[in-house]
Amino acid sequence: MKDFFKVTPLEDVYKYIPNFIQTDSENIPLTEAEGRIIAGDIHADVDLPDFARSIVDGYAVKAATTFGASEGNPGYLTLNGVVEMGILPDFTIDRGEAAHMPTGGMLPQGADGVVMIEHTEALDDSTIEIYKSVAPGQNVIEKGEDFKNGELILRRGQRIRPQETGLLAAFGHKTVTVYKKPRVGIISTGDEIVSLDQIPGPGQIRDINTYTLSSLVQEAGGIPLAFGTVKDDYDALFEVCTQAFDQTDMVFLSGGSSVGTRDFTIEVFSALPDAKVLVHGIPISPGKPTILASIQQKPFWGLPGHVVSAMVVFSAVIKPFLDHLAGLSPQTPNNSFRIPARLSRNLSSAQGRIDFIRVRLRREKEELWADPVLGKSGLINTMVKADGLIEVGMNTEGLDKGSEVSVILF
Amino acid sequence: MKDFFKVTPLEDVYKYIPNFIQTDSENIPLTEAEGRIIAGDIHADVDLPDFARSIVDGYAVKAATTFGASEGNPGYLTLNGVVEMGILPDFTIDRGEAAHMPTGGMLPQGADGVVMIEHTEALDDSTIEIYKSVAPGQNVIEKGEDFKNGELILRRGQRIRPQETGLLAAFGHKTVTVYKKPRVGIISTGDEIVSLDQIPGPGQIRDINTYTLSSLVQEAGGIPLAFGTVKDDYDALFEVCTQAFDQTDMVFLSGGSSVGTRDFTIEVFSALPDAKVLVHGIPISPGKPTILASIQQKPFWGLPGHVVSAMVVFSAVIKPFLDHLAGLSPQTPNNSFRIPARLSRNLSSAQGRIDFIRVRLRREKEELWADPVLGKSGLINTMVKADGLIEVGMNTEGLDKGSEVSVILF
Repeated sequence: MKDFFKVTPLEDVYKYIPNFIQTDSENIPLTEAEGRIIAGDIHADVDLPDFARSIVDGYAVKAATTFGASEGNPGYLTLNGVVEMGILPDFTIDRGEAAHMPTGGMLPQGADGVVMIEHTEALDDSTIEIYKSVAPGQNVIEKGEDFKNGELILRRGQRIRPQETGLLAAFGHKTVTVYKKPRVGIISTGDEIVSLDQIPGPGQIRDINTYTLSSLVQEAGGIPLAFGTVKDDYDALFEVCTQAFDQTDMVFLSGGSSVGTRDFTIEVFSALPDAKVLVHGIPISPGKPTILASIQQKPFWGLPGHVVSAMVVFSAVIKPFLDHLAGLSPQTPNNSFRIPARLSRNLSSAQGRIDFIRVRLRREKEELWADPVLGKSGLINTMVKADGLIEVGMNTEGLDKGSEVSVILF
Repeated sequence: MKDFFKVTPLEDVYKYIPNFIQTDSENIPLTEAEGRIIAGDIHADVDLPDFARSIVDGYAVKAATTFGASEGNPGYLTLNGVVEMGILPDFTIDRGEAAHMPTGGMLPQGADGVVMIEHTEALDDSTIEIYKSVAPGQNVIEKGEDFKNGELILRRGQRIRPQETGLLAAFGHKTVTVYKKPRVGIISTGDEIVSLDQIPGPGQIRDINTYTLSSLVQEAGGIPLAFGTVKDDYDALFEVCTQAFDQTDMVFLSGGSSVGTRDFTIEVFSALPDAKVLVHGIPISPGKPTILASIQQKPFWGLPGHVVSAMVVFSAVIKPFLDHLAGLSPQTPNNSFRIPARLSRNLSSAQGRIDFIRVRLRREKEELWADPVLGKSGLINTMVKADGLIEVGMNTEGLDKGSEVSVILF
């Protein structure tokens, strides 16, 4: 067997990630911030909340007044006022006094705890009986208890989830500065590929990769820019790559895992300004003939043409590059949790490469099982049936039925 | 303690799901289909692929010709043609003949297997030597092997992922019929709530729930419509609920877990046309004072005002209702996988209710640990720190450190 190309181990491919430039930042309305990445640290400019609030319906008191109160030995307090929602109480609470408190209301001066209404009884218009004591601070959110003035509330590189949106609202941010979504150019090549507008003739197939890759990019928070299908022609490819370089932050050239086409892709990438071809292949299956070039610090990828291979390479190889371009901090939690499951059959694997196996997840009683979905990497039905991928490492000859595996969902 | 309201167990709340109407369908461009839900079954209208294709670079042969070929006993074949990508071969392959095949090329008539180029040597312009036999169908994707003409390719209620987009492209669908995104009206009430445009005075806080709930709705594939903050005033609330009924498929009225406000919400909901108040509270914590009404088969929710409670109720209670409205089939895989983890400390819990506990996930060696994030449900910092929720069941007094838990990510 010929030595087709010198491959770069996957962990060494990842080492190129910091070489590529992140997108600029932009200021956007908070209502459009869901899923975006924060471009700079944000600090609290007031205490949150800015006043002590009750978290129950009841009576605001000086906690010390209530010590010892019980069902058998109730305490008696004088009703000194009624707190209205959203209004500064115009009275204070002293020993032996209480104010009627709604949930969320502001504690009057002097009060430091709230007795729940369930533990009280109003005896008349001015006297309440209490059956339970409260500690200072009980049933209260203190001023600054959520966040203190000056505290770091959100960190550069964090993804904005619903709770981060709420936090920004709490501090009155109507807009937020985020990284721009990376624009990803997608070019499909191959003399047999026709666009969706055409009826494929004999030997021709429709362009699938433009659509799967565009959706993957969207899902990952990027903006896909499709450059259509291009024939395997040096001048045509060079021109479209040049256009894509001008308009995008990253480029996929998919199609052509045959040897001739690969050489062609490398030739075109190498002719682009300041080109460095960094990776000529990766010991993974599927996806071995993956090419990575740096064109003035923008990543250009040559992807295998088979739909499964291209999707696996996106999930397993490219996604962390896209996250980096998008400004996402690698420390961000909740970005890459894999689902633990048990393998439902033996899997053999070649040593010296990482195998990515499509699996379908199935819950049986309380356990989650991963059923391998086998099939050629040109068959999209295998991806439609699958819920995710598992990784079978470089230095193993396979996995036994019942092994614990981690599923990368897609 | 007073019996504030009669509660409906969570599993009984879910039984109301089918009572609510799903959205209509609409036809959208395939490029906008990512994440949408298919509104009708889709069948293949041709074989995919429509011709036998090679999946390697090599030589197309009649497989029987190669039987017995090996390194020690090579076979010799006559080169009968070269297959070009995307072009119908104008010759046939008979016994003893071979055609040069690129990956993805169409097999010539007569050929039923492809010998990989690595297992051959070209002796001269017309003769090749082969070192390995192939079985019929080997290294080939057969006509119709991915999908057969007439086969169901996608089912009503499936979510469109990148691979489903690719599949639709493969069959030439430039558009796809999907369920409309459910419109969700969001109303914040409470006399202490001010909009983001205002500086909160003493006792006032900014509206958070409109923002967290809008983001949750977006994330879940709906369209949030914010109706702003409304004072606790019957006429004002009735009017905004009527507007929201006309313009949306589901409504959230958030704020006011104090008893008075709850009664008020029920009163307003009950006054809407054909109103049925179905749920007056759910034995979950946080989130007990949740109200569900059906207004002409549209769900109207009264949500607790505390941000954590409102978010937990959305994730644990409302999400399956929204999925139903959106047309998502409950059988769709990959919609609700929970992440198994180990609890890092003891948790106590009251019997007779389900506790939803915020957790942060942490990987230690090969194990994933769930660290409870405790704190009052009015504190948004606890949600910002958390990666998800775990459920502590009705009939348990708590969970021990080291217990297996399932994390609902958010």
